[in-house]
Parts: sequence; C-alpha cells; structure tokens
Amino acid sequence: MSTPATRFFEHPIQLPSISSPETVSAKLAYRTYGNPNNPAILLPTCFGGRLDDNLPFLYVPGEDGSEPAIPSEKYFIIVAGLLGGSESSSPSNTPVRVSAPFSGRKHFPSVSYKDNIDLQVDLARSLGVKKLHAYIGFSMGGQQAYHIAVLYPDFVERFICIAGSARTSGHCYSILEGPKAALVNSIDFKDGDYTDSEPCKRGTGAFGRSLAPWALSQEWFKQRSWKVAGPGYASLEEYLKYDWEEGLGSWDAHDLLCLLRTWQDGDITRHYLEDEGDLSKTLRRIKAKGLVMPGRTDLFFPPEDSTEEVKHLKDGKLVIIESVWGHLAGGGESTEVDREAIVKEVREFLVT
Amino acid sequence: MSTPATRFFEHPIQLPSISSPETVSAKLAYRTYGNPNNPAILLPTCFGGRLDDNLPFLYVPGEDGSEPAIPSEKYFIIVAGLLGGSESSSPSNTPVRVSAPFSGRKHFPSVSYKDNIDLQVDLARSLGVKKLHAYIGFSMGGQQAYHIAVLYPDFVERFICIAGSARTSGHCYSILEGPKAALVNSIDFKDGDYTDSEPCKRGTGAFGRSLAPWALSQEWFKQRSWKVAGPGYASLEEYLKYDWEEGLGSWDAHDLLCLLRTWQDGDITRHYLEDEGDLSKTLRRIKAKGLVMPGRTDLFFPPEDSTEEVKHLKDGKLVIIESVWGHLAGGGESTEVDREAIVKEVREFLVT
Repeated sequence: MSTPATRFFEHPIQLPSISSPETVSAKLAYRTYGNPNNPAILLPTCFGGRLDDNLPFLYVPGEDGSEPAIPSEKYFIIVAGLLGGSESSSPSNTPVRVSAPFSGRKHFPSVSYKDNIDLQVDLARSLGVKKLHAYIGFSMGGQQAYHIAVLYPDFVERFICIAGSARTSGHCYSILEGPKAALVNSIDFKDGDYTDSEPCKRGTGAFGRSLAPWALSQEWFKQRSWKVAGPGYASLEEYLKYDWEEGLGSWDAHDLLCLLRTWQDGDITRHYLEDEGDLSKTLRRIKAKGLVMPGRTDLFFPPEDSTEEVKHLKDGKLVIIESVWGHLAGGGESTEVDREAIVKEVREFLVT
Repeated sequence: MSTPATRFFEHPIQLPSISSPETVSAKLAYRTYGNPNNPAILLPTCFGGRLDDNLPFLYVPGEDGSEPAIPSEKYFIIVAGLLGGSESSSPSNTPVRVSAPFSGRKHFPSVSYKDNIDLQVDLARSLGVKKLHAYIGFSMGGQQAYHIAVLYPDFVERFICIAGSARTSGHCYSILEGPKAALVNSIDFKDGDYTDSEPCKRGTGAFGRSLAPWALSQEWFKQRSWKVAGPGYASLEEYLKYDWEEGLGSWDAHDLLCLLRTWQDGDITRHYLEDEGDLSKTLRRIKAKGLVMPGRTDLFFPPEDSTEEVKHLKDGKLVIIESVWGHLAGGGESTEVDREAIVKEVREFLVT
C-alpha cells in the first residue's frame, strides 16, 4: 500500500491569538485511505507524532499480507495532524507577522482540543462523511477521542482512547511543567525569539531528555529494554540521547510548547460550564460506544484514572494493555505483543 | 531542646578532582545531641536537606513534651551533612582555585557515597564511637545506610533505610537526567561559570520545577494535597513555584549537580568488584539488622525494589509507608500519620 499524498484543509474560522491581535487561518494536514463511501474512521495524531507514524500498524497491511485491524478496503480512513504538530498549522510553519528580525513563532495563538475537533469535523464533512464509524487516538489522540465524543455526540458512533484521558490530571499537568521549564529557561530559547539559523537545540534537547522517564516504566528500565527499542541501543545513555534528546529534540520549540499547552488544558468539562467541573456528569453526555485502553504502567495516564472514567460512560469498555512499556505501550512502537493486544480489541470493537 | 552548634570535621584524605588536578580537603558539617557514652546513632542528610531539617521528628521532643523515637537522654545522636549539601564541603563553599573571573565551583571534584561514609566513620571514631547502634537515613540518606552497612559491616549494628535503595535504578538515574539537563542547558548556567553576583537562578528554578512531580504521587495531586503542604497553598501553581522553583531553586547549581552525581552513581556493588554487579551477593555481605521503609507511592524508589532488596538481607524487615505523599512520605514533612508510622517502627527496631 503506497502512502497517499498529504493534503491540507483550510478552515474558515480563525484562531484568536492571546498574545497579539493577529489571527491565524488554520489548516489541517491530512491523508485519506480507501473509498469515501465506506464507513469512515478518523485517527488524529499524538504529541510528537506526524501523519507518517500515526498508528500505522492499525491500517497498514502486514509484510506477510495479513489484514490489519482497519483495512482500507472496508473503511474510509482519515489521518489528521494536530494543530501545532508541525504539519497542520503550527508555530514553525505559520509565523505570525511581526517586525523583523524575529520569527514571530512566539505569537502563534494557543490552541485547544476544541479547535482541533471543530476543524476535523469540518474536514470529515467536506469529504462527504455524515457520521464517523469510529474515532481512534493514542495519547493526545486519545484525549481528542473523548473530546469529539463530548463535543459532537451525534457525529461519532464509536471512540477508542488508547493511553489517554478525558481530563489532564494535576499530576500530568505538573509532569509537563518540567520539560516546559527546561525549554523556556534554556540558553538558546531567547525568550522565544530564536531564529531558523540559530534554533533552540539545547532547549528542545533538554525537553526531550526530561520527558523520557515519564514515557516508560520502572520495570522497562530494569529489563534494560533500550536494547530492543528502535534500532536497539547499546546503552541507556545512547537511548536517551538518540531517541529523546535528538529525536524529540529535533522538533521546533514553539511547536512543542503549542502542543503542550493543548495537552495541559485538556478537559472535557470545560465545554459544559453547567457541569461545574464534575467529570462524571460530562462523561455521561457521551452517546458513542467507548473502548478505553490504558497501559498498565503508564505514568501520564495511569490505568486507575481510565478505570474511573469508564465507570461513567453509558457504553464503555476498559481493556488494560499489560506491558512494561509505560505510556509508549499504546503507540504501537513497543512490542509485537502490545500491538497484537491493541489490534485484537480494535478489530472486535469496530464490529460491535 | 536547643539546637546544638554546627561543627566541622576536617578529613585528612583528599578528594581527587576528575576535572582538574586540584584536590580538596573535605570537611563534614555535623551536630551532636546527648552524651557520647550512650549508644550512638548517626543520621546523614538527604538530597536538598540540611542539618536543621534532617528528620528532626525522630529526635526532637514533641511540643507536648512527648518522648521522640530517639531521645537524646538515651542515645548519642550525630547528624552529618552530605558532601555537596552546602554545609559540608561543597562546590558553593569550597571554590577550587582557578584563574579569575570564574568561581571555580565547576572544578569541585565528584563525590561518592564511599567518600561520605569514610568521612562519617572517621568523624564517629573521633567522637569516641566504637560501633554505631544505628544508622538512619532518608532518600540519599537511605542509600548511605545501605552503603555503610556494606562498607563497614562491623561498625554498624542496625541500619534504617527510609525511601532509599542499595543501588540507583536505571529509571531513577534517568529521572535525574531531566532536572540536570534543565540546569546545565539553562540561560544562566554559563557552562558552569555563573558567578555569585549573577547566580544560576533560572536554571535551578527549572531544576526544581521538573523534579516536583517525581517527588509525589498521582493520587497526591488528585487529592489537591498542595492545600495542606507547607503553609498550605491556594493553587498547584503556587506550590510548584514556592516549594520547588523557589525553594529547591534557591540552592547553588553546582551543589545540586554534585549531590545528583553521588545519587546517580549510588551502587553498593561497586565496592566488591568480585560480585560482578550482582546486587543480591553484595546485599548478603551486610551483617547489620536492617529496617527498610519505602513509600507505597514513591516514584524514585518504588516499594517493589525495596521488597526485592530486603529478600537478600540476612536480617531485614520491610515496612511500607502507606501514604499518597510519594517519596516525600519518608521525610517527615508529609502528614502526622506518616510520621507516626515511621516513629513507631524506628522505636521498636532500635531495641531489637
């Protein structure tokens, strides 16, 4: 299966900037697979994710030709990039006009999950979709799954939240404050005015390194699993350096901050002020069937939180991914066993 | 009970510096309580701790006059500061001579737990102690407890490790890489050459903020426990700002890095190369009775690790502190219930 071209959907509404009177006309980067007449499934990207690496194990056939959980012969698949994710409108590709010599990236507006979901729903409608058969996301994608189910209860029949939550917890919020502090206080952030020729490399490197131990579990380190991560690393230091300091650290600093802000502010109760922050009330507004798959050892989104959230769904199923890969267990880049566990549940859930 | 004066013990051996040919004559800051003829108990400080706040609830009488776990009428109490802890020899108070205008702090040698333990044992002997009745530490203090029991098996009868470990895990090592990256890449670290007049405040602030969520637990945040932390904070942001960004952030950057290095390198197996890193072998060398008290929700030193370590002690007792205060449950600044649980176990253990 060849990779479809990336296209862009330009949204008529504009995102207001909190830091300047400028506005930005937002664009979504997306790809589609399959026939628009088939049941539609939308998969949004996660933090640090791009269209290329967004849960491909769910819809790309195996090398042995085996059928994936979501075959493009049966479903119309839409993969959409997060605002701030460097392909859709983001600080790095949408400099807001300011006086030279600054890039203007720092003036990109803050973006909410609602901004993302509104755009995605308009995109789906523009492609002829009347109702989504399913909406499937990992991490920030899983948070978006809860958000679309709450914001557009009649537009989505099923949602799957893998290693995500309906509301960012106080702990998760505080976790993200660490990498953020590393970045904004770094030597080359320059109060946000770094330039293309002098990017904020040390800041994003520190950001990546400080996020790494949150993404995995104590047991993962005990088993020295860096030996089987990615290409297989000879040492923990190599893993931290290549996968995190240089890997995640290759992102644009303002793109990371933009995504982080969306994540930190994630909370479905904000959209129904009459619920007064009572998460159980807002969760009960969801009409879609839900499949919620936390990782057993996830430090961002512990399974206890997912267990509590599922209790308040009218039709929710909880399946814990039994893995030592922490948060990463949900993204498909951990082990074949983790992927198979997710594929099995997704396949069954899509035909319920 | 009035606070005894802080005294200093100057060690005859010198610490070799890895970054320069300079050497430093190391001094230990310490205090004693009680009569040297009574059974002696040594309490070393922890990361970010000073003599003033080193487990005082164990040996200072209650305001109601109630007897503490370690009454100074019955025991000879020695409280000793960690090298790097800002009172004993540390980068901030022992500038190694280098050319102006630099402070020379960056040339302070790296320090091991063995360096600390050697000094403490010499100090105790100089005070007339033939054998320690007990050695009690929290966090890095708990790691020191394992180290003295391994390095001086005939000098210590009992050790108590509260929220510590015999070896720093790969996960814990990686956790500490985050705050370190934030600090050394910060705008005012200046490759270690910051000065007294322009200290590394933003770096240490970012360090503090990124360490905070590791020191507590998911549940602590869920219960909004910042309302009862310290003076009681109105918001999570206030807690992060005052207790961590400004609190821990008030430390000298090189002192923090010096302590961090000691912590990251902590591993009792290094002292018996013939054990080839087999932790169980080195643990079996310990002759002292051990009481090991991890916190149920500690993210640095999870109770699973302590449980495993205690299995290999000849005479070890495990008691888990049932608390949502994460790592901080062991330091005595969490709740009255946590303190009482620790006091009860310590009191019983000292007379076994």
